[in-house]
Amino acid sequence: MLVNSKHFIAIWLKEDDNSIVQIIDQRHLPHRFIIEDLKTVKDIATTIKDMHVRGAPLIGITAAYGMYLACLNSEENNFLESIIKSAELLRSTRPTAVNLMWAIDKQLEKINQAQTKQEAISISLSTAKLISEQEIQNCKQIGEFGSKLIEEISKKKNDGVVNILTHCNAGWLACGDYGTATAPIYAAFDKGIKIHVWVDETRPRNQGARLTAWELGQHGVAHTVIPDNTGGHLMQHGMVDIVIVGSDRTTYTGDVCNKIGTYLKALAAKDNNVPFYVALPSSTIDWEMKDGIKEIPIEQRDGEEVKYIQGLCEGEIKKVLLTPSMSNASNFAFDVTPSRLVKALITERGICSADSVLSLFPENKK
Amino acid sequence: MLVNSKHFIAIWLKEDDNSIVQIIDQRHLPHRFIIEDLKTVKDIATTIKDMHVRGAPLIGITAAYGMYLACLNSEENNFLESIIKSAELLRSTRPTAVNLMWAIDKQLEKINQAQTKQEAISISLSTAKLISEQEIQNCKQIGEFGSKLIEEISKKKNDGVVNILTHCNAGWLACGDYGTATAPIYAAFDKGIKIHVWVDETRPRNQGARLTAWELGQHGVAHTVIPDNTGGHLMQHGMVDIVIVGSDRTTYTGDVCNKIGTYLKALAAKDNNVPFYVALPSSTIDWEMKDGIKEIPIEQRDGEEVKYIQGLCEGEIKKVLLTPSMSNASNFAFDVTPSRLVKALITERGICSADSVLSLFPENKK
Repeated sequence: MLVNSKHFIAIWLKEDDNSIVQIIDQRHLPHRFIIEDLKTVKDIATTIKDMHVRGAPLIGITAAYGMYLACLNSEENNFLESIIKSAELLRSTRPTAVNLMWAIDKQLEKINQAQTKQEAISISLSTAKLISEQEIQNCKQIGEFGSKLIEEISKKKNDGVVNILTHCNAGWLACGDYGTATAPIYAAFDKGIKIHVWVDETRPRNQGARLTAWELGQHGVAHTVIPDNTGGHLMQHGMVDIVIVGSDRTTYTGDVCNKIGTYLKALAAKDNNVPFYVALPSSTIDWEMKDGIKEIPIEQRDGEEVKYIQGLCEGEIKKVLLTPSMSNASNFAFDVTPSRLVKALITERGICSADSVLSLFPENKK
Repeated sequence: MLVNSKHFIAIWLKEDDNSIVQIIDQRHLPHRFIIEDLKTVKDIATTIKDMHVRGAPLIGITAAYGMYLACLNSEENNFLESIIKSAELLRSTRPTAVNLMWAIDKQLEKINQAQTKQEAISISLSTAKLISEQEIQNCKQIGEFGSKLIEEISKKKNDGVVNILTHCNAGWLACGDYGTATAPIYAAFDKGIKIHVWVDETRPRNQGARLTAWELGQHGVAHTVIPDNTGGHLMQHGMVDIVIVGSDRTTYTGDVCNKIGTYLKALAAKDNNVPFYVALPSSTIDWEMKDGIKEIPIEQRDGEEVKYIQGLCEGEIKKVLLTPSMSNASNFAFDVTPSRLVKALITERGICSADSVLSLFPENKK
C-alpha cells in the first residue's frame, strides 16, 4: 500500500543485490520510516523475535526468506545439518503464530528435494517469493470477500458511514500487502464506500496506535485511535457496525488466537449484537488443533514492555517508565476467542462460519 | 494508608493554617510525591477538573472543602449569590461522579441554615470534615464486609493465594483512606490472608499502573501490573478468583458506571464464572436513575490524553507521542456495566445483590 504516495510491501529482496532481504523496521513507526538490511538467518531471527516485523503472515514470509539466507550462507559440507539448525533457530523466535512453522516446513520440504547447494538456494528463493506472492494474493481475495460485508451494511444504512472496529495491526504491515483485517477496509474504501475505523491502540506494544493508524492515515482512510478499554462502550451505544480482526492461529474448529484483548472485544460484540469477523489466510489455520484455549501456546513477553513505553518527545524517540519501578508486570501476547463468539471467518476462498472452515478447505480433512 | 511508612490521607487542612486545603497532586505519582496548597474555590475546581485529585468519593470530599473555601473567601454583601456561583463552578468540573453533586448539595443545605458569613464558614468547615470522616469510615466498613469474601475464597483454596483483579484506582487515593475496591484488599492483607492483585493499568490515564500499583507497593501488597487487554485471558485460565472494582455512579437498580473498560472485565468475569463485585459507599448511588446505559452522562475528555502519555525518562517526567501526529483520538472516561453482570455490591451497610440496594438503604425508597 501507499507510503508518502509510493507503493511499498513489507518485505522484499534488495533491488541490485539478491543476498540482502529488506524490511520496514516497524519498531520505529509511526515516527520514523526505516528500511533495514538483513543478511543472515540470525538477522532474520532477531528481526522476528524483537518484532522489527510482526503479524502472522509476515512472520511466515520473513521466516521463508530466512531459510533462503540460511541456504545462501551455509557451508557446503555441513549443509543439511546447518539448514536444520537454522530452521530450529527460526522456530524458537515466536511460539504462537502457526505461519512461522508452516513456512519453515514448506521450505524444508522443498530444500530436501534439491541435489546441490546451488539448487537449494535457487529453490528456497523461489519458494520464499512464492509464499510472499501467495500471501499477498490471499489478502487481496480476503479484501474482495470482506468488502461485500461492509457494502451490505452501507446499503442498510442508506450509504451512511460504516463504523468498523479493529484490534492490533492486521494490516499490510503484518502481511506483505493489503492486510487481513484491513483488506476489506481498503477494498471498501477504494470502492467509495463511506467508512470510519475505530483503531484499538492495542497495549502493550500499541500496534494499533502506531501501525494501523499510520497505515490508514497514509491511505487516506478516516480513523480514530481509542484506548482498548473503549470498544464496549461504543458498542453499547450503536457506534460500531462491525468488528474485523486478524488471527495468529486459528484451530480447524474456529477458535481464534489473536493479539491479547481480542477476546474482550468479541464478548462485547456478542453482548451487543455486533457481528464479529476474523479475516485470515489459510496459512494461519492449525489443522491439528481442536481446542484453542487448552492447546495454543501463548507467548509471554518481557514485563518491561508493559512498564516502559516508547514515543516521540522533542523530536526524539524516547522510552518512559509508566509504573513504580519496583512493581512487577506481566505480558501475555495473545488470547483465544472461542468460536462461539465469532460470526464468521473471512478467508481467501470465501466466508464461512467459524466451525466449518473445513468445508472451504476439504483437502485438510483427516 | 502508608507512604514511606508514614500515615497519609488524600486531603486535609494545613496543620497551622485553616484557610489552606492540602492534597497529594496525583498527576505526578508514582514518580513524584508532591503536596499542593489550595486556597480558593477556583483552585479546587482546577484540581478536580484537571485531575490532581480523582475518584468518586474524593471528588465529593474535595468539592465539600471547595464550598468551605468559597464561604471563607466570599464578600459579605453578595454572599449567597457568590456561594451559588461557586457551587455551579464546582458542579461543572466533572459530569459523571454523582458524589460531586451530592457533596455540593449537602453543603448548600447546611450553608443555607447559617445566619452570618462567620456561621457559614464554620458550618461548611465542619460539614467538609464530617463528609471526609464519614467517607473514610464507610470505606473502613466496606473493607470489613469485603474482606470476608476474600477470606472465604482463601479457605476454599486451603490458604492458597487469592488472586484479585481490579481496574483503575478505587484505592485510598480515590477516597481519603482505605479505598473502596482496595478496602477489602487491605483488610484481608492486614488479617494475614495470602493475596495477589492483578492491577489493570487503566488506559488512557493509567490510574492502575500509576496509583494502585504505587499504593499497594507502599503497603507491601503483592501485585502485578497488566495491560487492560489481559484480564480475559487470565480468567479463562483460572488465574483470577475475584474481581473487585469501584464505581463513579451506581443507579438504584444496580447499573454501575465506572472507569472505561470495567464493562469488558465484567463480561469476561461472567463468561468464566468469576465473581464480579463492586465496592462503593452509598454517596455513589444515584437514587433517581433507573437505566445506567441510557441515563448516566459519560464524560468525554481531550483526545490528547490518549495520543500522549507521561512517564519517567532519565530522571525527568516527560510526555511522549504514541500515535501518528495527524490521527484523531477519542477519550470516553467511563462506561456502564449492567447490573446483570454484577455479582453483588459491597457497601458500608453490607453486601447485597446489585438490584436490591434499596433493601440496605430503605430510607431512599420513593
